[in-house]
Amino acid sequence: MSSVVTDHNVTEHGVPDGQPLIFAHGFGCDQQMWRHVAPLFTDRYRVILFDYVGAGKAQREFDPERYSTLDGYAADLARICRELELDNIALVSHSVSCMIGVLAAKRLPGRFSKHVMIGPSPHYLNDGDYRGGFDREDIDELLESLDSNYRGWSRAMAPVIVGPENGPELAQELEESFCRLNPDVASVFAKATFLGDNREDLADYRVPTLILQANNDRIAGPAVGQYTAEQIEGSQLIYLEADGHCPHLSAPDEIIDSIESFL
Amino acid sequence: MSSVVTDHNVTEHGVPDGQPLIFAHGFGCDQQMWRHVAPLFTDRYRVILFDYVGAGKAQREFDPERYSTLDGYAADLARICRELELDNIALVSHSVSCMIGVLAAKRLPGRFSKHVMIGPSPHYLNDGDYRGGFDREDIDELLESLDSNYRGWSRAMAPVIVGPENGPELAQELEESFCRLNPDVASVFAKATFLGDNREDLADYRVPTLILQANNDRIAGPAVGQYTAEQIEGSQLIYLEADGHCPHLSAPDEIIDSIESFL
Repeated sequence: MSSVVTDHNVTEHGVPDGQPLIFAHGFGCDQQMWRHVAPLFTDRYRVILFDYVGAGKAQREFDPERYSTLDGYAADLARICRELELDNIALVSHSVSCMIGVLAAKRLPGRFSKHVMIGPSPHYLNDGDYRGGFDREDIDELLESLDSNYRGWSRAMAPVIVGPENGPELAQELEESFCRLNPDVASVFAKATFLGDNREDLADYRVPTLILQANNDRIAGPAVGQYTAEQIEGSQLIYLEADGHCPHLSAPDEIIDSIESFL
Repeated sequence: MSSVVTDHNVTEHGVPDGQPLIFAHGFGCDQQMWRHVAPLFTDRYRVILFDYVGAGKAQREFDPERYSTLDGYAADLARICRELELDNIALVSHSVSCMIGVLAAKRLPGRFSKHVMIGPSPHYLNDGDYRGGFDREDIDELLESLDSNYRGWSRAMAPVIVGPENGPELAQELEESFCRLNPDVASVFAKATFLGDNREDLADYRVPTLILQANNDRIAGPAVGQYTAEQIEGSQLIYLEADGHCPHLSAPDEIIDSIESFL
């Protein structure tokens, strides 16, 4: 029988009977991406890390059908919470994981008590007045480029995602992380990410939410962060000093402080 | 005696007694960057290509003092025009060359008759209401990163400049072009480029100007293109369908058409 622990390489740290604090990584990453942030919470929380299917050391078999939308990933996150019998969950999510977290929380009403979103976007495509940041044509080009040359795509995208302000080392780290993902998995996950539309899921989302919006985020810009904050009733929006789409890598101290003061 | 031809690897193509059409390359590039565009004009124009000091096959000695501002480069471009006895000059410039072109034209009043700017920016720094696109802190980080690891910087910046929409091959080409530049030259040129402020030079610029503003230009965004157009009296602004800061590489046909219809 498959175990959720081996399926998603679930690792636990800190206080076993403390409040569960889950860190959910983004596209092309794994739980290692939280290494500068998560350890700072192990003195008070039951810190739970995991890898999505296809990422890190997750052993779950990849099913292109199941994972063609974010619901598949959300079902996995919900399964982790259910099988570990978690309640009063605090979730810290990055990038696409923010919307996966919204969908997972909706599958387990009342079980999530706080949600910190780092660089969320409910929809990457421009659509009338909504400015997701990308034209459909751009996204199609990005996805074609990913399919035809995933290594090259990773090399070109990583610096744009991390932000050149943060120097080449972080970009290279992210590129290497991307390259550890199987290209077929990456293709399906990228389509689910960039073509998804979760705007309607925000309107009735009631988990108290903090949105962290970095400077010069070229993937989810300030207009998207602001939109997300406006849609989620009662949410807070903080504009970070950190640059780029991966502030938990480039400016962990600011992320740690923001999470701490919100939790 | 040094010759302007060897100093700047000046090459001429096309109709010897035609109207001079100069193509001026940007930071970290050389005249090869015009290879998709310039040949389309050799049937009607005297096409002139050159390399700035430190770039391509330019033999002129690099003087960090002279080239600490864009005036040094402008003096070189003006010298080329003077020594070749050019008049009724049409100039096509990319990126930092747009402002170099403005300064050069001012050194030779009446000699320039048309100016096509691709991705111009008179000032990269945000300054009050002016949105150049970069905070001072970001630029300082970029310049520090360039000084400490130029190869890494090139690798991180090239995809951001070219735009990931255009695939990894172009980013790699630009990265390799950057890497052919001596890091000390690159450092001085980058400072002159990113810290310069040529906004006041636009107000009395009277050369008929066409500004080509690409989509998703992460170096000189639409607000900067619009500002430039507003400042140069009588200029035209075209929003390209092409993406990124190097449309002459990624979408040469659109650039060729735009130049042709303007000239």
